[in-house]
Amino acid sequence: MNIDNIGLIGMVSIIIAGLTIAIGSVGPAIAEGWAVARALGAIAQQPDQANTITRTLFVGLAIIESTAIYCFVVSMILIFANPFWDYFTSK
Amino acid sequence: MNIDNIGLIGMVSIIIAGLTIAIGSVGPAIAEGWAVARALGAIAQQPDQANTITRTLFVGLAIIESTAIYCFVVSMILIFANPFWDYFTSK
Amino acid sequence: MNIDNIGLIGMVSIIIAGLTIAIGSVGPAIAEGWAVARALGAIAQQPDQANTITRTLFVGLAIIESTAIYCFVVSMILIFANPFWDYFTSK
Amino acid sequence: MNIDNIGLIGMVSIIIAGLTIAIGSVGPAIAEGWAVARALGAIAQQPDQANTITRTLFVGLAIIESTAIYCFVVSMILIFANPFWDYFTSK
Amino acid sequence: MNIDNIGLIGMVSIIIAGLTIAIGSVGPAIAEGWAVARALGAIAQQPDQANTITRTLFVGLAIIESTAIYCFVVSMILIFANPFWDYFTSK
Amino acid sequence: MNIDNIGLIGMVSIIIAGLTIAIGSVGPAIAEGWAVARALGAIAQQPDQANTITRTLFVGLAIIESTAIYCFVVSMILIFANPFWDYFTSK
Amino acid sequence: MNIDNIGLIGMVSIIIAGLTIAIGSVGPAIAEGWAVARALGAIAQQPDQANTITRTLFVGLAIIESTAIYCFVVSMILIFANPFWDYFTSK
Amino acid sequence: MNIDNIGLIGMVSIIIAGLTIAIGSVGPAIAEGWAVARALGAIAQQPDQANTITRTLFVGLAIIESTAIYCFVVSMILIFANPFWDYFTSK
Amino acid sequence: MNIDNIGLIGMVSIIIAGLTIAIGSVGPAIAEGWAVARALGAIAQQPDQANTITRTLFVGLAIIESTAIYCFVVSMILIFANPFWDYFTSK
Amino acid sequence: MNIDNIGLIGMVSIIIAGLTIAIGSVGPAIAEGWAVARALGAIAQQPDQANTITRTLFVGLAIIESTAIYCFVVSMILIFANPFWDYFTSK
Amino acid sequence: MNIDNIGLIGMVSIIIAGLTIAIGSVGPAIAEGWAVARALGAIAQQPDQANTITRTLFVGLAIIESTAIYCFVVSMILIFANPFWDYFTSK
Amino acid sequence: MNIDNIGLIGMVSIIIAGLTIAIGSVGPAIAEGWAVARALGAIAQQPDQANTITRTLFVGLAIIESTAIYCFVVSMILIFANPFWDYFTSK
Amino acid sequence: MNIDNIGLIGMVSIIIAGLTIAIGSVGPAIAEGWAVARALGAIAQQPDQANTITRTLFVGLAIIESTAIYCFVVSMILIFANPFWDYFTSK
Amino acid sequence: MNIDNIGLIGMVSIIIAGLTIAIGSVGPAIAEGWAVARALGAIAQQPDQANTITRTLFVGLAIIESTAIYCFVVSMILIFANPFWDYFTSK
Repeated sequence: MNIDNIGLIGMVSIIIAGLTIAIGSVGPAIAEGWAVARALGAIAQQPDQANTITRTLFVGLAIIESTAIYCFVVSMILIFANPFWDYFTSK
Repeated sequence: MNIDNIGLIGMVSIIIAGLTIAIGSVGPAIAEGWAVARALGAIAQQPDQANTITRTLFVGLAIIESTAIYCFVVSMILIFANPFWDYFTSK
Repeated sequence: MNIDNIGLIGMVSIIIAGLTIAIGSVGPAIAEGWAVARALGAIAQQPDQANTITRTLFVGLAIIESTAIYCFVVSMILIFANPFWDYFTSK
Repeated sequence: MNIDNIGLIGMVSIIIAGLTIAIGSVGPAIAEGWAVARALGAIAQQPDQANTITRTLFVGLAIIESTAIYCFVVSMILIFANPFWDYFTSK
Repeated sequence: MNIDNIGLIGMVSIIIAGLTIAIGSVGPAIAEGWAVARALGAIAQQPDQANTITRTLFVGLAIIESTAIYCFVVSMILIFANPFWDYFTSK
Repeated sequence: MNIDNIGLIGMVSIIIAGLTIAIGSVGPAIAEGWAVARALGAIAQQPDQANTITRTLFVGLAIIESTAIYCFVVSMILIFANPFWDYFTSK
Repeated sequence: MNIDNIGLIGMVSIIIAGLTIAIGSVGPAIAEGWAVARALGAIAQQPDQANTITRTLFVGLAIIESTAIYCFVVSMILIFANPFWDYFTSK
Repeated sequence: MNIDNIGLIGMVSIIIAGLTIAIGSVGPAIAEGWAVARALGAIAQQPDQANTITRTLFVGLAIIESTAIYCFVVSMILIFANPFWDYFTSK
Repeated sequence: MNIDNIGLIGMVSIIIAGLTIAIGSVGPAIAEGWAVARALGAIAQQPDQANTITRTLFVGLAIIESTAIYCFVVSMILIFANPFWDYFTSK
Repeated sequence: MNIDNIGLIGMVSIIIAGLTIAIGSVGPAIAEGWAVARALGAIAQQPDQANTITRTLFVGLAIIESTAIYCFVVSMILIFANPFWDYFTSK
Repeated sequence: MNIDNIGLIGMVSIIIAGLTIAIGSVGPAIAEGWAVARALGAIAQQPDQANTITRTLFVGLAIIESTAIYCFVVSMILIFANPFWDYFTSK
Repeated sequence: MNIDNIGLIGMVSIIIAGLTIAIGSVGPAIAEGWAVARALGAIAQQPDQANTITRTLFVGLAIIESTAIYCFVVSMILIFANPFWDYFTSK
Repeated sequence: MNIDNIGLIGMVSIIIAGLTIAIGSVGPAIAEGWAVARALGAIAQQPDQANTITRTLFVGLAIIESTAIYCFVVSMILIFANPFWDYFTSK
Repeated sequence: MNIDNIGLIGMVSIIIAGLTIAIGSVGPAIAEGWAVARALGAIAQQPDQANTITRTLFVGLAIIESTAIYCFVVSMILIFANPFWDYFTSK
């Protein structure tokens, strides 16, 4: 195998960029599924409070989504602004 | 094994492009399944609120789907706009 | 083992094309199973709303199915329109 | 080990053809089991709606079965219409 | 290890033929177990509908069994009509 | 390690013959356990329907057992009528 | 490692003979545990039907035990009537 | 590593003798735990039927214990009456 | 690594002696925990039957404990009466 | 493989930066999903206490989010302020 | 790696002594947790029977603890009275 | 691979610093999620006790958070005050 | 890798000392969590019996803690009174 | 790889120090989460007993926390007072 440092850094950047967003989207997606499912049940149970419920739901979804966005940010950094890659390509 | 940097980068791009969307579609699919299932139960329980319920459902599905789309975007970038691959093929 | 770049790229394309659709069909299938099962329960509970329920069900199934289709698309791209394979065979 | 590219491609085609349909049949089978089980419960609960229930059931089963069929299609392509295998045998 | 292409192809054909049917029979068996168990409960609950229930049960079992049969077909193809094996033995 | 093709084929035939029936008997056994357990509950609940219930139970058990028998058939083929083994021993 | 074909075949025969019965006894044991536990509950619930229940239980246990016996048969064949071992020792 | 056939056969005999009984005792122990626990509940629920319940319990435990005994038999055969070991030591 | 047959046999004897009792104690301990927990519930529910319940409990615990004792016996045989070890040390 | 210390340090920094945030976002996301789902149910149950509930919810979410932020901080340190990387690049 | 038989035996003795007690303490601890938790519930439900309940609890805990003690005994034998270690050190 | 002691120590420090906080944040996050969710339910059930409940909640969260902080401390020590790294860099 | 017996023994002593207490603390902690949680429920249900309940709880916790202490003892022996380490350092 | 005993001992000390506290904090955190959650429910159910409940809770939390502290102690010993490391550095 005729591989050197730059090939190795490129390889792991691709692997981790993909796995980070893949693994990191499972938790938030499932959590959002619970929250949405429970919100629908709450609306069916208390139609009068639909406004309060959906408002609390959307704030909660935003906070949950934030953990998915952390992963997406790290993934994008690794593909487009990777300091380790820049070091080796500029060398 | 007669392999060099460009073969390695191509190889891991294919592997990660596939696994990212494969793993990343499990969470959202299951979450959407819960949300849809619960929405049907809520409609059966409160037929009068069917409009509010389906509207909240579709907004929720869109937010859940977003995490699957993050994965699809990363997968497409790795196949069609991969900066690491471009670096090695242009070299 | 007498293998070179093109054999390696072909090998991982086959592996990932198969695994992507195999793994990616588990989540949507299970999610659709929940949704269908719940819809049948909802019809049994509120026969009057059968129309609303089946309509919401089919929209929901379409959204869930979309994640399976992302995986199928990636799998077909890897078999029939693989840019990495084209690069090595045209070289 | 005296193996070359064509042996490798044949080997992984067999492995993935089998695993794709094996893994890909677990999810749909279980999902269909849930749907059928729930349909029987719904008929026992609302005998009058047996027609609506079985009709919705069969449409749902068809959609779930579609994900198993995606896997079967990929499996058959890998055995009988494999472009990578054709490339190497025609070379 | 004194092994060549034909030994390798034979080896993986045996391995995958066995694993495909072994893994592929778990899902359908469990799904059928749920469906049968639920049908017995439904008969105990609504003895009058025993005919409708058993008829729906058998149609459902046939559809679930189809996924096991996909696996059995692939397994038999790999043992008795394997194109990769034919290629190497005819060479 | 002084091993050649025929030793390898014999080895994997033994491994897969055992694992196929071992893995393949777990699913049907558990599914039959559910069905039998549920049947006993149904008899306790509706003693008048004991005949219908046991008849449906035995038909269901036969269908579930069929997936275990697929595995047993493949296992026996691999031990006593293995075409790959015949090829190498007759060579 | 100074090993040849006959040592390898003996080794895998021992490994698979043990694992087949070990893995293959888990499923039936658990399934029988469910069936027996449910039967005791059914007797406590409907003492009048104790005869029907125990009769159905024993037929069910016999069918479940059959999958454990498949595994025991394969295990005994591999130890005492192994055609691959006979081939190498008679050579 | 200075190992030959007889060392290898001794090694795997020890490994498999231990693992067979270790793995094979988990299923029956758990199944017996369920059956005993349920029997105690049944006695508490129907003290009049204590005799029928304990009799059915002991027959059931004997059948479940049989799968553990299959494993113990194979384990003892591998330690004290191992035909593969006899072959190599008598050679 | 300067290891020969006797070192290897000693090594696997230690490994398997420990793992057999370690793995083999998990199942019985958990099963006994269920049985004891259920017995306490049964006494609280039917104080009059405390004698029958504790008697059945102790018989059940003895049968469950028997599977742990199988493992302990095999573990002691491997440490203090190991025929494979005796063979190599007496050689 | 032509790799030295600096390539290795770069490689593991990328791998761990990605995995830390990926694994570390699963737990908080799921925990927040539970908290939000339960809050919606509590509002539906006690609309009068909506203020107390949402206030307690947001404090709780902040504490849960803190564990995700620990992971994000470590991930950012590894990419942009990595003392091990600085040591090797400055050498 | 400059290792011989005595180093190997010492190494596996340490590994297995630790893992045996580590793995073997999980099952009993959990089982005791169930039994204690259920006993507390039983006392709360039937305060009059507190004596019978705690007596049965302590007998049960002693039997469950016995499986943990088997593991501790094997662990101590491996550290302080290991026949394999004695053989090699006395050689 | 051209690696020496200092590269190795740097590598494992990075790996473990990341994994410690990643794994160690899952348990506390989930535990805090349960506690917060239950607190919201308790407030909805007993609005009068909101003060006692939130006070007990915050003390409990602090104790749970302490286990996450142990992990964060170890992670920071490994990155910024690592005695093993200091030993090798000062050598 | 320039490693000999004493380095190896030191290495596995560290590994196992840590893993033994890490794995061995999971079971008791969870079991104690169940017992404490159930005790709190029992006090809320029967405040009059608070003394009996807390006394039984503390005896139970002591017995459960004993399995964690077995692991801690083995861990301390491996670090501070390791007979294998003493043998090699005194040699 | 140019590594010797002292590098190896340093490496495993870091790995185990991190993993011990990481794994060892999961169990206690989850157990404390259950205990706190149940305590909040108990206060909501029996406000009069809030004092007894919180006192029992804090004693229970202290005992559960002790297993996390065992792990933290071992982790700190491995980093700051490691006898194996001292042996090699003083040599």
